[in-house]
Amino acid sequence: MIHSYRVRGHLMADTNPLEYVQRKHPDLDVLTYGLTLWDLDREWPTGGFGGKPMLKFRDILGVLRDAYCRTTGIEYMHIQEPEERKWFQDQVEHPYSKPSREEQLRIVSKLNAAEAFETFLQTKFVGQKRFSLEGGESLIPLLDTIISDAADDGLDEVAIGMAHRGRLNVLTNIAGKTYAQVFREFEGTQDPRSVQGSGDVKYHLGTEGTFTSDNGNETKVYLAANPSHLEAVDSVLEGIVRAKQDRLDQGEAFPVLPIMVHGDAAFAGQGVVAETLNLSQLRGYRTGGTIHIIVNNQVGFTTAPSSSRSSTYSTDVAKMIQAPVFHVNGDDPEAVVRIAQLAYEFRQRFHKDVIVDMVCYRRRGHNEGDDPSMTQPLMYNLIEAKRSVRKLYTESLIGRGDITEDEAEQLLRDYQERLERVFAETHAAQTSPIPIITADSAAVSDIERPIAQQADFGTNAPATTAISAEMLQRIGQAHLDIPEGFTVHSKLKQLLEKREQMSREGGIDWASARSRPLVRLSWRASRPPRRPGLPPRHVRSASRRVPRPRQRQRMDAAGQPERGSGQAVDLRLLVVRIRGHGLRVRLLRGTPGRLGALGGPVR
Amino acid sequence: MIHSYRVRGHLMADTNPLEYVQRKHPDLDVLTYGLTLWDLDREWPTGGFGGKPMLKFRDILGVLRDAYCRTTGIEYMHIQEPEERKWFQDQVEHPYSKPSREEQLRIVSKLNAAEAFETFLQTKFVGQKRFSLEGGESLIPLLDTIISDAADDGLDEVAIGMAHRGRLNVLTNIAGKTYAQVFREFEGTQDPRSVQGSGDVKYHLGTEGTFTSDNGNETKVYLAANPSHLEAVDSVLEGIVRAKQDRLDQGEAFPVLPIMVHGDAAFAGQGVVAETLNLSQLRGYRTGGTIHIIVNNQVGFTTAPSSSRSSTYSTDVAKMIQAPVFHVNGDDPEAVVRIAQLAYEFRQRFHKDVIVDMVCYRRRGHNEGDDPSMTQPLMYNLIEAKRSVRKLYTESLIGRGDITEDEAEQLLRDYQERLERVFAETHAAQTSPIPIITADSAAVSDIERPIAQQADFGTNAPATTAISAEMLQRIGQAHLDIPEGFTVHSKLKQLLEKREQMSREGGIDWASARSRPLVRLSWRASRPPRRPGLPPRHVRSASRRVPRPRQRQRMDAAGQPERGSGQAVDLRLLVVRIRGHGLRVRLLRGTPGRLGALGGPVR
Repeated sequence: MIHSYRVRGHLMADTNPLEYVQRKHPDLDVLTYGLTLWDLDREWPTGGFGGKPMLKFRDILGVLRDAYCRTTGIEYMHIQEPEERKWFQDQVEHPYSKPSREEQLRIVSKLNAAEAFETFLQTKFVGQKRFSLEGGESLIPLLDTIISDAADDGLDEVAIGMAHRGRLNVLTNIAGKTYAQVFREFEGTQDPRSVQGSGDVKYHLGTEGTFTSDNGNETKVYLAANPSHLEAVDSVLEGIVRAKQDRLDQGEAFPVLPIMVHGDAAFAGQGVVAETLNLSQLRGYRTGGTIHIIVNNQVGFTTAPSSSRSSTYSTDVAKMIQAPVFHVNGDDPEAVVRIAQLAYEFRQRFHKDVIVDMVCYRRRGHNEGDDPSMTQPLMYNLIEAKRSVRKLYTESLIGRGDITEDEAEQLLRDYQERLERVFAETHAAQTSPIPIITADSAAVSDIERPIAQQADFGTNAPATTAISAEMLQRIGQAHLDIPEGFTVHSKLKQLLEKREQMSREGGIDWASARSRPLVRLSWRASRPPRRPGLPPRHVRSASRRVPRPRQRQRMDAAGQPERGSGQAVDLRLLVVRIRGHGLRVRLLRGTPGRLGALGGPVR
Repeated sequence: MIHSYRVRGHLMADTNPLEYVQRKHPDLDVLTYGLTLWDLDREWPTGGFGGKPMLKFRDILGVLRDAYCRTTGIEYMHIQEPEERKWFQDQVEHPYSKPSREEQLRIVSKLNAAEAFETFLQTKFVGQKRFSLEGGESLIPLLDTIISDAADDGLDEVAIGMAHRGRLNVLTNIAGKTYAQVFREFEGTQDPRSVQGSGDVKYHLGTEGTFTSDNGNETKVYLAANPSHLEAVDSVLEGIVRAKQDRLDQGEAFPVLPIMVHGDAAFAGQGVVAETLNLSQLRGYRTGGTIHIIVNNQVGFTTAPSSSRSSTYSTDVAKMIQAPVFHVNGDDPEAVVRIAQLAYEFRQRFHKDVIVDMVCYRRRGHNEGDDPSMTQPLMYNLIEAKRSVRKLYTESLIGRGDITEDEAEQLLRDYQERLERVFAETHAAQTSPIPIITADSAAVSDIERPIAQQADFGTNAPATTAISAEMLQRIGQAHLDIPEGFTVHSKLKQLLEKREQMSREGGIDWASARSRPLVRLSWRASRPPRRPGLPPRHVRSASRRVPRPRQRQRMDAAGQPERGSGQAVDLRLLVVRIRGHGLRVRLLRGTPGRLGALGGPVR
């Protein structure tokens, strides 16, 4: 029975702010176990559960319900590692304890900021698209908690990828973009060079900022630019984070934390999510665990979950990699914050992906031009009647006696001050020339931009791709220049000799022509050579033709010829030849995912 | 402990033909439960396990190992429905019993056919690409079993979607294409109209045939044509099956069974797999359960699983929809056939997807021009030393005394006769004008072809898309022609009136222009009206703007205005107006999956 609560307690948890239904499951029914009301006060052997050998059935049930069936449901029993399961039990199987006063006040202040921002925009730019966070304001304390913990742990950076919903709120209240900048974007004073120019650019842009925790610790915050295609940013963010980590070169410390914010329908419905999850633990792609946050509106544009997915939860795809999943009621910000801490601790401890499914609602339409009552009338009747997360939480703090009436008034004043501050800042923006954020300045400052995104790139004139005869011969020569200790497969040796010959005498065949640009590109990346002390440039090549990692090749060297195929040898030889030029070449085996693999690290 | 075997027994099962490692898991270790050797003969209460209230520990372990740790591993405890879990326990938790003699002989004959075909091609067309099934020959008895059962149950048709590996073998030995036809395709005597003309066409083509079971029952077999893009056929096959089922109109009987054959790397790596699984239970897409078969070569092109996925099994993505997964050792064809039966029974009983992961190996390279020893030397040393599935199985039947030496010789003769028959048939093909299969005749005979694929479609001249003023007014009029009992949302009513006005007076806006082609298309699909008795034509429209199903709208009619948005109302009105013309219109809510949803039913 303890086991059943661990496995399926989440099915009975009160995670949905839009309904209070007493949920049941036969596995969780005491009758299933032949128990009745009369057993409540009998003592039972617990096998160590709750820290005591014997407990009253009443107390067992109490702990189980606190752990698995309050406003949080946890799925972790599908994980095969006993150590990870044990960790969860140690974390959650104890009676409920409430957060400290400071924590409570910080939560309120974050909710105040979140709601004030949306209220301002709603007043000032009524009807304009902004993909409001309203209904899911707990996202702000959630992110705030994770990033605070990351700052206190000394992580170098937190990198966020997210779709439109709540993006402006995160940009300002988490990533440090000023209200004035966002305001300017609404007013449409765009850089004329901006490609999009459609007014949509404000929720496509990313930003970079610095986050300071309550303890005074700092960490960088990066929010990736993203296209409208919901989940396309996933693999791109992982690539950016991996590139940042490669540059910091701290190995398994994974000092950059990736956070992805998803919509519920997109997470369940888009294949690139599965592709990105599938890459999460692979040698060439892993980033030490991503925290995925589902802002679960319970509606995808206009489609109800029953019409858009076949799974119980929108998060069920994450079970493919045995990621733990927390479902939490977005109307209980204390629970949200507790789960944020747990998710962060899990990532730091096991360096694997973890999912937080914050079940909330979307107060307005898909965007502010959509009337949701046309397509989901029942749901929106419920939503119209709801008070905001901030109001609910403040009231419950008063109701529980956690804060006094005075403090409550103080909090309300705080909320109003924030609103006024936004108005004041935007007024200042209107009357003074604050530089605005353009597509350009939203670059990733510590990673070089791809050429196509550099400022003076605009024309599309075809470049000459021919290479000189001398370069060709040099590449040809590299085929014979086998480094010491590297045994080439006998069939390949012939091939390499033939390729060298071709590069001198002409008659280059398709296969070797194909490998030329790669080699040339890598060569070029090493020019000019990096000054010592600068981090090395990285070249990655993922291909079906890449041999197994060097390590393994050494392991079966006993009598076995060591092997590698054409292109791989080209690159491998190159690695040797340009060592010292500050180039690090990484060869990866290809994976079958299409969109997911495209997002590899930026060069 | 019983529970642990149910949950994780698969981790100890001997499912890999390439290794025999005594696998362990702490959850399955008797020591974890404080038990020792001395407890083996003590009796324990079982809670009904094994059909008896008390059993010796020795016997409990025996049944558990037979059920969960022989050459088959089963994952089903992640399913939330107690009824489904119970079904599995009833099916597998009993001591091992072996198949009947007839079954054994049928298995051998299928393996004979499978191997003979590949051996012939290998001899005759050495070095040509054919994506040989060798190493995974058990696929043929597997499919044979499922389709036999389907024929005996009176299913109308079995529709198969698969990638290249083993395709020619399935086409001939399962779907009834003649050896001669395949041979002609190898010789390149192609229809000159064939678009591809590259010689690749033979493993892109589909076919249609009839399958007869041992009991003399027949069912149709359809194998869908597919592109090279590994898993793209998934959603297309589901669409074809759904269209076939809609035509048969037997509702929840789902008389067409979809089977998909996947590669292990593609199943784990491609996002369209997740998208297709996600659609599997949705109202507009479901097909009553698909049997997914993974031909698990333990290598994707040249990439080992450790470099291509983050999950334990390649099948783990299927857990997102709580599908049960069978892992079975491809070198044990009896186990494969038993699993085929179970998978089929599960599909018929619960009408949900089920996965069979047949763990085997790939005797040759990715195709016959690839030398796998260059990229996976260790694995291919093992594979070179292995005898074929057919040989292993025949020997084990002799070894166990299940067949006599005489019968063994008879089986060998059967194998050789099959080989000779292939040679004879292809000889006949060389000397007589047997019609060859072209892209054209591989059509789906009971579904109309899209215009673009019809024989005389070749030019790409733009058609006139303008519609007459009269048609425009007629469509406009339809906006006011509200059917009885249908209450239109008050905001919409104004819109509809305005649209009617636009269609008379001009000045048509973007939104209504956009809905015109849809309406027009549907209208056209109803011309000429179908003769009574013919199955209705189907029109489907999936959109974010479609209202909830009619049923639900009625439920909240109490005081609530019924609602629908523009395009939906257009189509809904049309449904009423053209009823009797043999057109059935189905409105679906949009889903966020891109590639997956594209494969909706063929019209």
